[in-house]
Amino acid sequence: MTDPDALAALESRVAALTRQVARLEDAHAVKSLQYKYGYYIDKCLYDEAVTLFCDSGEVRFLNGIYRGRTGIRRLYCDWFRKYFTGGVNGPRRGLMLDHLMLQDIVDVAEDGLTAKGRFRCLLQGGCHESMRESIPNFPRQFWESGIYENIYVKEDGVWKVKRLDYNMLWQADYDQGWANSGVHLTPMTRTYPTDPNGPDELLPEAPKTWPEARVVPFHYPHPVTGKRWGEP
Amino acid sequence: MTDPDALAALESRVAALTRQVARLEDAHAVKSLQYKYGYYIDKCLYDEAVTLFCDSGEVRFLNGIYRGRTGIRRLYCDWFRKYFTGGVNGPRRGLMLDHLMLQDIVDVAEDGLTAKGRFRCLLQGGCHESMRESIPNFPRQFWESGIYENIYVKEDGVWKVKRLDYNMLWQADYDQGWANSGVHLTPMTRTYPTDPNGPDELLPEAPKTWPEARVVPFHYPHPVTGKRWGEP
Amino acid sequence: MTDPDALAALESRVAALTRQVARLEDAHAVKSLQYKYGYYIDKCLYDEAVTLFCDSGEVRFLNGIYRGRTGIRRLYCDWFRKYFTGGVNGPRRGLMLDHLMLQDIVDVAEDGLTAKGRFRCLLQGGCHESMRESIPNFPRQFWESGIYENIYVKEDGVWKVKRLDYNMLWQADYDQGWANSGVHLTPMTRTYPTDPNGPDELLPEAPKTWPEARVVPFHYPHPVTGKRWGEP
Repeated sequence: MTDPDALAALESRVAALTRQVARLEDAHAVKSLQYKYGYYIDKCLYDEAVTLFCDSGEVRFLNGIYRGRTGIRRLYCDWFRKYFTGGVNGPRRGLMLDHLMLQDIVDVAEDGLTAKGRFRCLLQGGCHESMRESIPNFPRQFWESGIYENIYVKEDGVWKVKRLDYNMLWQADYDQGWANSGVHLTPMTRTYPTDPNGPDELLPEAPKTWPEARVVPFHYPHPVTGKRWGEP
Repeated sequence: MTDPDALAALESRVAALTRQVARLEDAHAVKSLQYKYGYYIDKCLYDEAVTLFCDSGEVRFLNGIYRGRTGIRRLYCDWFRKYFTGGVNGPRRGLMLDHLMLQDIVDVAEDGLTAKGRFRCLLQGGCHESMRESIPNFPRQFWESGIYENIYVKEDGVWKVKRLDYNMLWQADYDQGWANSGVHLTPMTRTYPTDPNGPDELLPEAPKTWPEARVVPFHYPHPVTGKRWGEP
Repeated sequence: MTDPDALAALESRVAALTRQVARLEDAHAVKSLQYKYGYYIDKCLYDEAVTLFCDSGEVRFLNGIYRGRTGIRRLYCDWFRKYFTGGVNGPRRGLMLDHLMLQDIVDVAEDGLTAKGRFRCLLQGGCHESMRESIPNFPRQFWESGIYENIYVKEDGVWKVKRLDYNMLWQADYDQGWANSGVHLTPMTRTYPTDPNGPDELLPEAPKTWPEARVVPFHYPHPVTGKRWGEP
């Protein structure tokens, strides 16, 4: 091989490496983005949470879809923040809402512009007995567990949440445990503006929750057989 | 340095980088493989779990070794699947078997053909009170915790589980907690085919479980001193 | 572009890639370091834990700062080890101290010499009812949760803990749950040597714990807006 050929060959290997390294950095960034979401939500930092989304982002929560910046703010800032902290952006004495994020599966598209991520969330929620004003219909203390299957997008080099799809699978009263509890969150029945906190759209069918059991579809194929989930 | 020398030097740096990047991609793939195992097992997707193994794979469970595809299918598809779901490959209403996977330590061999991984598993198990038929000898609701020290192998570019070594350390009845519970799973006493669900081999000694305490040997040396576990 | 220019351009790209790959390897190493700390601490392997620190390391625990190798050994080997295992370096029958580490956010400095990491820890602690000698003032069984915001340093190519800053946020008696529990660990009032297990320094103010709520400052800026935590 002459020098120019050797140089061209090396340039092409470096170009390939550059793409691979960028994808690894992307995967690290996407995982961190989701874990940071968890840390913000722990402490009712809703302003910090909503700015993790892109303008055309959406949140799927229970059987509702909250669309765009307006819909996402309605969910976190109008509904959750007023409900949990009386409108304060930050933690409240005696309120427990820990969102443990774990078991990350992040897959970045070849072009590095989108990514998908599956995460598990274990939630420890409740109110301390010393709280003066109780939060209406909020259980005293409970476990909650769900699976995220999210979509992320890179805009101007910055990873953002495009779709946060939270699949709440079970909730359990702390004292009773999961053997003796159903979920306390129930499907929504009305959209916004009929319900001022309502979603922009309702899913055709409410996802099943405990004691029903369901598989949250995997965004990835089986890592050995290559079979996509749901494929016959 | 003349151009050809400079080119050769650069080629060698690119070759080194190529290996490093491949090892980073391998580590990501191995972690994802194990986390995917956890998501499959949550939902009794045993067909999906067993195909994560290589042909010569094995599972160490309690004091038994299940060998090869036949042994692994005996454990997951003959034993677990019949026991938990009556033979259905998928989740069962009212059955809780969440396998939370976390705290990954993955080390890939220099040649990129094998890897070792340590993971923690926290299990939330049980049956909902509304289940009509109870699962014999399965506790109503419990916690379980264990440490994996696994071996992985890359075959034709695909990472597979070579040895899944699950060290169950404790189980606790949900109502009683770990202070007042021992484990409900007991060591096996017979191999296959005497026990139709039995392992191919029994370990010489059953690993100790709660309230006994033991260190699951670390596959990695101490990251600062470099001392291997068990070295004097 | 002539060949020498093309070669120089490629060399510069390879140099950039080399730095990027090193940072990815660093992030992997730092995460593993912290997760290994968790596995050692689970099993009262205090000698293994203290050698994860650099000579000028420190630990922030409750409202105390333990400084340098001497201070760190005082905390782990003089205080904890004597208290939990009667001085044995290793697990004790009937003692539960699982430190679940998760939700890693690791950021490595450009020069690859320091790093910061945020981690969540969920602790399952207690003593089995069959333990003959109880541990004074140690609760029967409890949950604990905290956030680490740590600093790491690379010395001679080896990552070490520079500052372990553990922010214990809540503890809950297992039977009562977090709705009905406060923390059992209380702030320290005296430094070493007045208190033989005491820290080298007390923080000006004891960090708030449950049912008080606080945000552990984030070492990273908001990943989308770029705003640093605490900035107006």
